[in-house]
Amino acid sequence: MKVNIKKLVKQLLNGDVSSTARLITLAENSDRNEEIISLISHHLGNAYIIGITGAPGVGKSTLTDKLVKKLRKKNKKVGVIAVDPTSPFSGGAILGDRIRLQQLATDDGVFIRSMASRGHLGGISSATADAVKILDAFGCDYIFIETVGVGQSEIEVVKNVDTTILVLIPGMGDEIQAIKAGIMEIADIFVVNKADKDGVERTIMEIDMLQNLSENKKRKAPIQSVIAKDNVGIDELIEKIDDHKKYLKENDLFHDNRKKRLEIEIKQIVHEKLLTKAQEFMNENYKINQFIEDIYSKKTDLYSVVNQIVENIL
Amino acid sequence: MKVNIKKLVKQLLNGDVSSTARLITLAENSDRNEEIISLISHHLGNAYIIGITGAPGVGKSTLTDKLVKKLRKKNKKVGVIAVDPTSPFSGGAILGDRIRLQQLATDDGVFIRSMASRGHLGGISSATADAVKILDAFGCDYIFIETVGVGQSEIEVVKNVDTTILVLIPGMGDEIQAIKAGIMEIADIFVVNKADKDGVERTIMEIDMLQNLSENKKRKAPIQSVIAKDNVGIDELIEKIDDHKKYLKENDLFHDNRKKRLEIEIKQIVHEKLLTKAQEFMNENYKINQFIEDIYSKKTDLYSVVNQIVENIL
Repeated sequence: MKVNIKKLVKQLLNGDVSSTARLITLAENSDRNEEIISLISHHLGNAYIIGITGAPGVGKSTLTDKLVKKLRKKNKKVGVIAVDPTSPFSGGAILGDRIRLQQLATDDGVFIRSMASRGHLGGISSATADAVKILDAFGCDYIFIETVGVGQSEIEVVKNVDTTILVLIPGMGDEIQAIKAGIMEIADIFVVNKADKDGVERTIMEIDMLQNLSENKKRKAPIQSVIAKDNVGIDELIEKIDDHKKYLKENDLFHDNRKKRLEIEIKQIVHEKLLTKAQEFMNENYKINQFIEDIYSKKTDLYSVVNQIVENIL
Repeated sequence: MKVNIKKLVKQLLNGDVSSTARLITLAENSDRNEEIISLISHHLGNAYIIGITGAPGVGKSTLTDKLVKKLRKKNKKVGVIAVDPTSPFSGGAILGDRIRLQQLATDDGVFIRSMASRGHLGGISSATADAVKILDAFGCDYIFIETVGVGQSEIEVVKNVDTTILVLIPGMGDEIQAIKAGIMEIADIFVVNKADKDGVERTIMEIDMLQNLSENKKRKAPIQSVIAKDNVGIDELIEKIDDHKKYLKENDLFHDNRKKRLEIEIKQIVHEKLLTKAQEFMNENYKINQFIEDIYSKKTDLYSVVNQIVENIL
């Protein structure tokens, strides 16, 4: 039986939680994401999107949890997409964190979804982008994307937000140095969590120094100390998020950044579609086995074959 | 001044080390890899390609080092491509390992090259594939690809070899369980390095158990204990590599596997070329900015634009 996408979308736009969940699953696991996104395309652009990233164990989930609760008190509708790394080498705290976040799940004004970062054909960033759109149409004022900032694909996910928060903890020392390589540049706000531990001042100083070294940054990202588990510093962090939003708007960056992201998204989807077409084309129209035999027996060479195929596809 | 590729290739085929180095660099960093690979295409297929993978700290470099030295004693020409993860979260032992390997570099029968796993347009696996071909044409009997088996791209690299060696050390416990997820399946030979440490028997038992659980494997991969730093077990490991080669040949898998890899390579390069064309097309022929404005102002939607572009490219 074919799912009635139109009906689900109608319910989504009316704020129905279970239709939202269903549509995110369909966008993630079926080929109907295009249909879904087209149907909601006139209801997009209202949510403010925040990325929360950092190494495992810095307390990203607790922080998200507290931010969500504060925003709920202000009567804001909030969505959370937690990108779980499924690498066998990742930590084991993820499930516990998710369970804690689920305590919020009885509230209709919060929507929480975990997504595995592996096994996505179009990559986790396109799966996340679809989910963000669906939550936007669902009426979220804020959408948080929480990712472990280890792999390239996690960084890609965070690039697709309005405000990126990089979470650190005191005593990371060498890790802060390591952050230099790539992640530093994308942080709009630094959070030093577990600020009741020794070494907060040093960590702040190190972030500060690294920021002074960075030449690409127009704006110096503020640093907020928090103790997420005790709800300390959360109000101030929300203020800093609002400040960043204001900064973006005042400097004509708010729409500009979104348009730049849209351009990247267009290109990405064009690429994905071309790859799918190429795959079909090679499977159907080509005696690829003959080509392989010919290369293998040195009758022809790799690039002659490749160029022949490409010319025929275009 | 345009580099004379033909001349370099001629010198490569005569066994000139510096031309080999130059060509690998050119293939890696310029758009001339196609030209290089075409010129050497009639001189490929002679090298036996071995992948060595495993978590950081298990002693992959030392093992490679010892294998190379043994094979040199048998008068075999050997190439080593060490894929260095450039992730900020990786260990720091890499440089030291590389320096040790460089001690071999005064020998004309050994060629060693490090490659960063990040920052490759076509991905590290295509850069490695080019380097393997160049070393093959250089006359290597054996080519080792050494990678840290953490990320997906490192696993992709190892998929492109004749024999995959997975290196473990005693007392990895949980890590061995983690290996189940993906890497286990690709190992043709298990090496338990640092076999003078406690827990070797248990590690071997665990590998054995996991292999019995695995349903996809036709052949049970042998397990070789070694103490790489003391040169213990290296001869036996070389025997096991030869056994695996024999096994491949006797079961018609040697050429079959290579042809399958060739098919994957063709498809990959076709994909890369299509992406490049699409990129050029969008940059040149499309008022992509107009499209962005139209989506942003909701005159049209994302997928209408994408489909229009795709249809025009094809």
